[in-house]
Amino acid sequence: MDLGLLYSAGKDSSLAALLLDSFYDVTLVTATFGITDDWTHAERAAESTGFPFEHLELDQPVAEEAVDRLVEDGFPRNAIQRVHLHALEELAEDEFSAIADGTRRDDRVPSVSRAQAQSLEDRHGVDYVAPLSGFGRSAVDRLVEAHLDVESGPSESISRADYEAELRTLLVEREGRDAVAEVFPDHEQTYVTGFR
Amino acid sequence: MDLGLLYSAGKDSSLAALLLDSFYDVTLVTATFGITDDWTHAERAAESTGFPFEHLELDQPVAEEAVDRLVEDGFPRNAIQRVHLHALEELAEDEFSAIADGTRRDDRVPSVSRAQAQSLEDRHGVDYVAPLSGFGRSAVDRLVEAHLDVESGPSESISRADYEAELRTLLVEREGRDAVAEVFPDHEQTYVTGFR
Repeated sequence: MDLGLLYSAGKDSSLAALLLDSFYDVTLVTATFGITDDWTHAERAAESTGFPFEHLELDQPVAEEAVDRLVEDGFPRNAIQRVHLHALEELAEDEFSAIADGTRRDDRVPSVSRAQAQSLEDRHGVDYVAPLSGFGRSAVDRLVEAHLDVESGPSESISRADYEAELRTLLVEREGRDAVAEVFPDHEQTYVTGFR
Repeated sequence: MDLGLLYSAGKDSSLAALLLDSFYDVTLVTATFGITDDWTHAERAAESTGFPFEHLELDQPVAEEAVDRLVEDGFPRNAIQRVHLHALEELAEDEFSAIADGTRRDDRVPSVSRAQAQSLEDRHGVDYVAPLSGFGRSAVDRLVEAHLDVESGPSESISRADYEAELRTLLVEREGRDAVAEVFPDHEQTYVTGFR
């Protein structure tokens, strides 16, 4: 069965791909607003994994609304959540029989509730699966350690392709560099450089 | 990494074993109160899968309390939930580095909340994983269809080993057959006869 997995080249979505690999024909799908070309990093990472890759374009107005929300809230949670659900909706419109993401049990955001999952499935006639949602942080860390080659560092220095990077770029354009530091306190990001 | 999976020979715990197989050294663990010998069905089913098998004895007073609860409530949900959490506690006391069960996204019971999962992990120093908790009913059904050979029928006629069967037996002993029909309305159970 063909499955499209939202893929950022980060460790969670990469591990999700490995977990699904024995059961589905997995395509890695990087969804972006076309604000930056960062998705090409994900394409290169995907090539090294051997999984097929697709680039999915999201709706620009959703990015603008998300940045409005970032500015209003002063923290990224609601904006990222909004964009993630939009990406799943767009992916569900695609030709896949099943769709997936790399959300973990301990993720506060993005998170997809049982009701949201069911609604997505019913409206689009697809299965939505979140293979890491039954795994906590320490289980994920151990599996990543065993199965992936990972680089990590501050968010800005790591080449990956997720909504956060594009929202940061848009926020800098609209509000300047200081706004980014306020909304996104420094934290480590990871970028997967290979499967073991 | 060695992992003990709560196993009933039903389709959910069997599918969970397949999902975990590439990442852990899985042992199938059937937990019972020693009320019936139904766990030997699970042992035979486990033999056909090639996974190692263990039988875990639970505390008899927990079964008695669960039956009190069945009689008081008139429905099985709280009793089954109580017994499932007890089984996970006992499994976590075992020598495994990680423990797991076959709970699905759409299960009302048993269900293990994020907080219960974290508490189990912190107190026992194990990882708890629920590999099916990100899969809905239709995704599970499709995977079962593709990967397992399954028999199904009314609960009473199917040889499997779960808490429900033992609680039924105990309830018949204490309250008679009519009580069982009241508390457990007829429903289909499944028994896995092989992996494809």
